[in-house]
Amino acid sequence: MGLLEKTVNSIPAMDETARAAAKARLEKLTMPHWALGRLMDLAAELAAMTGKNPPPVARKTIVTMAGDHGVTESGVSQYPQAVTMQMVYNFVNGGAGVNALSGLTGASVVVVDMGVNADLSALGGKIIHKKVGMGTKNIAKGPAMSRDEAIRSIEAGIEVAQSLADKTDVFGVGEMGIGNTTPASAIVSAVTGKDPALLTGRGTGIDDQRLTLKIDVVKQILELNKPNTADGLDLLMKVGGFEIGGMAGVMIGAAALRKPVLVDGFISTAGAILASLIAPASKNFMIAAHESVEPGHQAMLGWLGKRAYLDMNMRLGEGTGAALAMCLVDAASNVLTKVATFEEAAVSSQDK
Amino acid sequence: MGLLEKTVNSIPAMDETARAAAKARLEKLTMPHWALGRLMDLAAELAAMTGKNPPPVARKTIVTMAGDHGVTESGVSQYPQAVTMQMVYNFVNGGAGVNALSGLTGASVVVVDMGVNADLSALGGKIIHKKVGMGTKNIAKGPAMSRDEAIRSIEAGIEVAQSLADKTDVFGVGEMGIGNTTPASAIVSAVTGKDPALLTGRGTGIDDQRLTLKIDVVKQILELNKPNTADGLDLLMKVGGFEIGGMAGVMIGAAALRKPVLVDGFISTAGAILASLIAPASKNFMIAAHESVEPGHQAMLGWLGKRAYLDMNMRLGEGTGAALAMCLVDAASNVLTKVATFEEAAVSSQDK
Repeated sequence: MGLLEKTVNSIPAMDETARAAAKARLEKLTMPHWALGRLMDLAAELAAMTGKNPPPVARKTIVTMAGDHGVTESGVSQYPQAVTMQMVYNFVNGGAGVNALSGLTGASVVVVDMGVNADLSALGGKIIHKKVGMGTKNIAKGPAMSRDEAIRSIEAGIEVAQSLADKTDVFGVGEMGIGNTTPASAIVSAVTGKDPALLTGRGTGIDDQRLTLKIDVVKQILELNKPNTADGLDLLMKVGGFEIGGMAGVMIGAAALRKPVLVDGFISTAGAILASLIAPASKNFMIAAHESVEPGHQAMLGWLGKRAYLDMNMRLGEGTGAALAMCLVDAASNVLTKVATFEEAAVSSQDK
Repeated sequence: MGLLEKTVNSIPAMDETARAAAKARLEKLTMPHWALGRLMDLAAELAAMTGKNPPPVARKTIVTMAGDHGVTESGVSQYPQAVTMQMVYNFVNGGAGVNALSGLTGASVVVVDMGVNADLSALGGKIIHKKVGMGTKNIAKGPAMSRDEAIRSIEAGIEVAQSLADKTDVFGVGEMGIGNTTPASAIVSAVTGKDPALLTGRGTGIDDQRLTLKIDVVKQILELNKPNTADGLDLLMKVGGFEIGGMAGVMIGAAALRKPVLVDGFISTAGAILASLIAPASKNFMIAAHESVEPGHQAMLGWLGKRAYLDMNMRLGEGTGAALAMCLVDAASNVLTKVATFEEAAVSSQDK
């Protein structure tokens, strides 16, 4: 049995005892019943995920996975592929959006080369090297990768989660990959059966003309590759990307270790869809951080049955939404652990 | 000229030079144009408010104002009036929701007695004493307070803002007052002209029967008092509350000092409506922190022309929404100051 199968089979159920313990305390806090709403929902969820009340949340890691996409040659992005590599350097130097926002809660940013089309060996131990290939093949002309490469992508993600688990209570996943809104649109169109025209957006900010082209490319990708939408590996292999598979792997690996995962935006949620097809139980450990501007994101969240916590008009990726939502994780934890109960504070809980 | 008039007249305009400087930097950051959306909007707003780029945001103060309401004798709340006083002790002891959430960003919580129906002198310097009266009169039977008391409430808030200004970059306002969703519903019904049935909610969690009663009470309050909706002082005097006037004063005082104010939820936004009637220019310095569960809150935000940043199903008050949104203020500041520009990071900004 390989790492993937073994990990999928080891994902535990939610811990309902820990959830009940958290809820019991939350219901006694000095405030009207459940008056902090979604922060309290989140606190109870974190207890059920981690199996602990209160859930540990202090040590946070954002895993930012990078990969390139052959489909850029079809003109779907306004940025050149080289930007993926340049942004990896920017992450390492601490100058990107995800670095700025992870600082809010002291989260670490760990960058993984899943398949950047450049030699990143000079970065040594500053990033994790899991390169599956020098970018995917052009999915407008055939599959993104082989089935073996799809499995390797996911197993690499599992290995990353396992290697970081000792110093991580809560994970976030994010990505960088010029062109990767195109495979994400293909994935959500495939699983929902909805028209790509409704699920394809402007990505980095393309104009109307390029958007029309991009929608046609997504249609062509699906007609040509005909992915099996019940098989996450087939979807990944035919219309996915190395970093998308890697994020799915982190989510599966984290779930097996009872670690909550904040899922960033549009591309990350494409990874969440793959993870939940391959390992349905992994979905329980996913938290939808924010709602992206990309029009396909709501359809993804609907398919997953998740509601995003934040709606900030963001569309950057990198893990920026996950990094921002880490504040809400801390807030949920503070509510659970730092608010007095009616009894502790000697406050009247009702009138006579 | 009294303190109120003097302060209203000294509120400056937005600083468009500082806003433009912030925008100029935000547009050069290593990301697609404005890809962090509302965080970037907020960063530019903060620059315009404070007149500085980057805007100072490190020192945060949540002002939590407490007051009692004679209308509780009409049965509008399920909690006894004594809870207002008990919660003041809970704030001082650090055990309330606002204490737990202010800890996220290191914000201070300053509690002000605006009109609690209890002698709080034993708390000495642990709170600010600005008591205007031992709770308002029952607005279902007549005006809440005299016009002089209305002016005193607002001037007390201005004095609080002035006394904290030296150690505060960004203010938040919140409140505690059993029964105070009733005057807030009356204020929003009065200014929007909408049916109180659409704008009156469950407050601390009343049942259907009590909600029906509460809606009738709000209608009675408006019919009896006939507030002049163009006159914020008349609204405050007839259907307001001491802490609602106090919060309006903090907003007016903060605006005159170029300090941004995070407005908490339903009751705080009633204060924001009064402030913007009395001092229209103060509205520019208000940031709507979150959208409350109370059905009248959206109507208030619509009237003010504000969109809330968070939507977390919260309905606690105290300043909890403002405390949580302080994370977004820090996030906006980090984006503006800690992300590299394309030039700084040597990232390609476009293809050829």
